[in-house]
Amino acid sequence: MEQEPTDELSQSWEANAAAWTRAVREGRIESRRLATDSAVLGAVLRYTPERVLDVGCGEGWLCRALAEQDVQVMGVDGSGPLIEAAQSLGGGQFVRVSFEEIAETPAILGKDSFDAVVCNFALLDREIIPLLCVLRSRLRPSGVLIIQTVHPCNLGNDADYSDGWRTEDFAALGGEFVESMPWYARTLSSWTDELGAAGLVVASIEEPRHPTTKQPLSLLFVAMHCGTKDGHVV
Amino acid sequence: MEQEPTDELSQSWEANAAAWTRAVREGRIESRRLATDSAVLGAVLRYTPERVLDVGCGEGWLCRALAEQDVQVMGVDGSGPLIEAAQSLGGGQFVRVSFEEIAETPAILGKDSFDAVVCNFALLDREIIPLLCVLRSRLRPSGVLIIQTVHPCNLGNDADYSDGWRTEDFAALGGEFVESMPWYARTLSSWTDELGAAGLVVASIEEPRHPTTKQPLSLLFVAMHCGTKDGHVV
Repeated sequence: MEQEPTDELSQSWEANAAAWTRAVREGRIESRRLATDSAVLGAVLRYTPERVLDVGCGEGWLCRALAEQDVQVMGVDGSGPLIEAAQSLGGGQFVRVSFEEIAETPAILGKDSFDAVVCNFALLDREIIPLLCVLRSRLRPSGVLIIQTVHPCNLGNDADYSDGWRTEDFAALGGEFVESMPWYARTLSSWTDELGAAGLVVASIEEPRHPTTKQPLSLLFVAMHCGTKDGHVV
Repeated sequence: MEQEPTDELSQSWEANAAAWTRAVREGRIESRRLATDSAVLGAVLRYTPERVLDVGCGEGWLCRALAEQDVQVMGVDGSGPLIEAAQSLGGGQFVRVSFEEIAETPAILGKDSFDAVVCNFALLDREIIPLLCVLRSRLRPSGVLIIQTVHPCNLGNDADYSDGWRTEDFAALGGEFVESMPWYARTLSSWTDELGAAGLVVASIEEPRHPTTKQPLSLLFVAMHCGTKDGHVV
């Protein structure tokens, strides 16, 4: 197996934290401004959650937007400077914790369960099943896991339609980014395989579209566990 | 609302029945030969079903392939000449019944339930929720509904990414087809909306690919109801 660039992935979010925080807060990412921010916010609010976990919360915009709607939010991210940026604006409980730490020590999330767990363009590593299993275990009986990611039609027509590591150089966001970011692209079927392996089914898929071209800008899964038995998720 | 071309859709499968039967039996449809026939057959067999309902069975190839694996199959189709073509080769119980009749009079399917219900490129009309509700009600507790359809990345880049009526002229299959066929294209999110409205969730999605170009040739949903209670599907 190829060397996994997981460390470079984590490191990029330390090195680019300031540039990323500015890009998000200044609304420089067109697809987010046009469609995907409101899509994920709307998807979460549709379930009228009391308590939400934002996994890979970054500088915290989604937590703040949910807090404005009186939702209790916990945001976790592996990047120290991003968590500090989130804490500086408040709106929720922000904790620096890596996805590996969540997978290995689920208790690090506390004892609470959640009506919704969100991963907004946050599942960037190849191995995600152990993390998904922990997130599933923290869903309340009717809770949902909401994942927004790259649309399969945007995986690149020049390449095979297949899973694999890609590189984001953030060139579209100006020259402040100091490191490129490796990220693991997944086909639609690979996404449902990973969810299935973690005991989740897909209740719905949304496809936020560009308001003018009507082309899909992202893919948004609403996943859930399939029922409960004696009060426990099965 | 625009005039629905449902009658033209049904009529095309009467008028083109002989041409279609030859095209299928002579293996003239490249995507089917390369990937999608084996994909749907493999998907059904993976659930080791005892009894399968093939909805929109056409001239019956899938029923025959399943019968060869000792699966009991019932095939239904709205086209009289296609059902006659299926009956002429045998392999299952073939019944001429339209999708509207199934939706309005579910008892027309008999009293049996099924381990798998298959719709292989068969859901071509706009309104499918009433049919899906009936099919769901005929699933055994751990039964699956398998739907193969057009991949979202193949809905046409020149058009909006949106639902709508399209026209198939069968030009790629030679000159024997006498009528074009209206069919209703759906985005990925519309598919999951329709399934959700019928009480179904998506357990997995497969994307059969072209063996050389690795581009997706179809989308294959495995849908299920979410659990049972007191032996009844909920």
